[in-house]
Amino acid sequence: MRCGVVVANCGWLIYSVRTMGSTSEQIMVAAVQLSTQADVGQNLAVARSRVLEAAGQGAKLVVLPEDLACMGAEERKREIAEELAPGSMVFDQLSAMAADAGVWLIAGGIPERSADSRRPYNACAVFGPDGLLVGRYRKIHLFDADLAGGDRLMESRGCQAGDSPCCVDVGGICVGLSICYDLRFPELYRRLVDMGAMVVVVPAAFTVVTGKDHWEVLLRARAIENQVYVVAAGQYGVHPYRSTFGRSMVVDPWGLVVSQCSDGVGVCYHRLDMARVREVRRQMPVLRHRRL
Amino acid sequence: MRCGVVVANCGWLIYSVRTMGSTSEQIMVAAVQLSTQADVGQNLAVARSRVLEAAGQGAKLVVLPEDLACMGAEERKREIAEELAPGSMVFDQLSAMAADAGVWLIAGGIPERSADSRRPYNACAVFGPDGLLVGRYRKIHLFDADLAGGDRLMESRGCQAGDSPCCVDVGGICVGLSICYDLRFPELYRRLVDMGAMVVVVPAAFTVVTGKDHWEVLLRARAIENQVYVVAAGQYGVHPYRSTFGRSMVVDPWGLVVSQCSDGVGVCYHRLDMARVREVRRQMPVLRHRRL
Repeated sequence: MRCGVVVANCGWLIYSVRTMGSTSEQIMVAAVQLSTQADVGQNLAVARSRVLEAAGQGAKLVVLPEDLACMGAEERKREIAEELAPGSMVFDQLSAMAADAGVWLIAGGIPERSADSRRPYNACAVFGPDGLLVGRYRKIHLFDADLAGGDRLMESRGCQAGDSPCCVDVGGICVGLSICYDLRFPELYRRLVDMGAMVVVVPAAFTVVTGKDHWEVLLRARAIENQVYVVAAGQYGVHPYRSTFGRSMVVDPWGLVVSQCSDGVGVCYHRLDMARVREVRRQMPVLRHRRL
Repeated sequence: MRCGVVVANCGWLIYSVRTMGSTSEQIMVAAVQLSTQADVGQNLAVARSRVLEAAGQGAKLVVLPEDLACMGAEERKREIAEELAPGSMVFDQLSAMAADAGVWLIAGGIPERSADSRRPYNACAVFGPDGLLVGRYRKIHLFDADLAGGDRLMESRGCQAGDSPCCVDVGGICVGLSICYDLRFPELYRRLVDMGAMVVVVPAAFTVVTGKDHWEVLLRARAIENQVYVVAAGQYGVHPYRSTFGRSMVVDPWGLVVSQCSDGVGVCYHRLDMARVREVRRQMPVLRHRRL
């Protein structure tokens, strides 16, 4: 199945297939764990150093977490929201990171300006190794919760939701995009798999309260039930208005955690192998057994 | 939402609402872990003793695992398949167990005779404390797999699949039914929740190969993403043609394992509290946030 081919008329966003160099069966991925604070310039500098470090270790695909440019009050997100286009500050820096490192870069969520100036999208931007934008996903499920631990987050007050699942072709490998709270909605990942995904990414900023009980379980479940690699890049530590859980990881299509970040800022790596995805799908054809 | 009310025209099987005694907010559940062999009479005797033991401990709802009457070759299942109606041997014994123990009994899968005499349904039968049948679910997803560890199982050769999700009203608590391999299909549990389920049961016979990596993860994920109690009763040990994983458990609607069987035949207990389900759903209204 071609990446991003729509199998039902659901209005999905489709990006044209780009193959940078030859189509690949394997790709080294890096999940970068950050501890983003309020200062955008400093946050982007840390992200840049980690992207270059990952490239130096052989990574060809690098995933950055949600809120990579700024963690803070909702109004701050509105202030830094911008078009995802050349000339925008965060956009240009991410584009340069991808090009300078020579990697595919999945960056997000970052605030994307929308027609409603008070509520940007929470967007994930994907850059090719030439620095060009090759895909963009706007978070569909916004996190509105009032948790027992005292965490009260109402993302929908500060953001507006997207409505289009999105896959991108990363050098011949179809990668499905999602962000953080999306992880709780298995129906999104079924859509991504129907679009051809063999890898899904989850940039995130899970809170400590939800992360300790839900993060690894849900990441592994999405991998098992869809027989895909799951690459999850999280925020870690204490930020303005929030503490996050970290534990960025790569889960293989059998559901095993094959690489994981410890506490703090860091990077974890794994060589994704599409033959492994096909083998798991052959042994137990779960996706062909769906009946509802 | 009333239990079993259909919210879309999908041909679901609906059972009339029965309330045995007063509607309850809490119910003590028991998940029975068996190690079923080939001898039906002996298997039913063991099951009966465990159901009576559970009732003695205060359980009002008892869940028995898949293949409770017989583990063996597929032809043996055909031989013991019967109508789920009075006069059938397994049916009558299960009915008597429920009545003698005075509990709601969820029993299955057991082979249910179908129009195609070579391929029975793998059915889950639900009995009230008076011994009357109050619900029946036929396994929708059949386990056809060829696993690395040498396990090769082709359930669809010996069974035919049902096509109707099913909930039953257990003394005012809406309980969704599923069997074993169904656990890999999140879309089924979304349907059960849409029908009103606040508890789902998973009678199972997970193999060791799949159980060690997938069983707990998938049970917890179904609880977390649907904010329901999950009650999973499994087979354990070495049987004809299969070794199974055990680890019967109860998972709460936040995704915590709150009760669990150790290796061997046994029973685990938990008091299900519908107020806890509502509280989790209030804190994080995941089910209202679905958009796809």
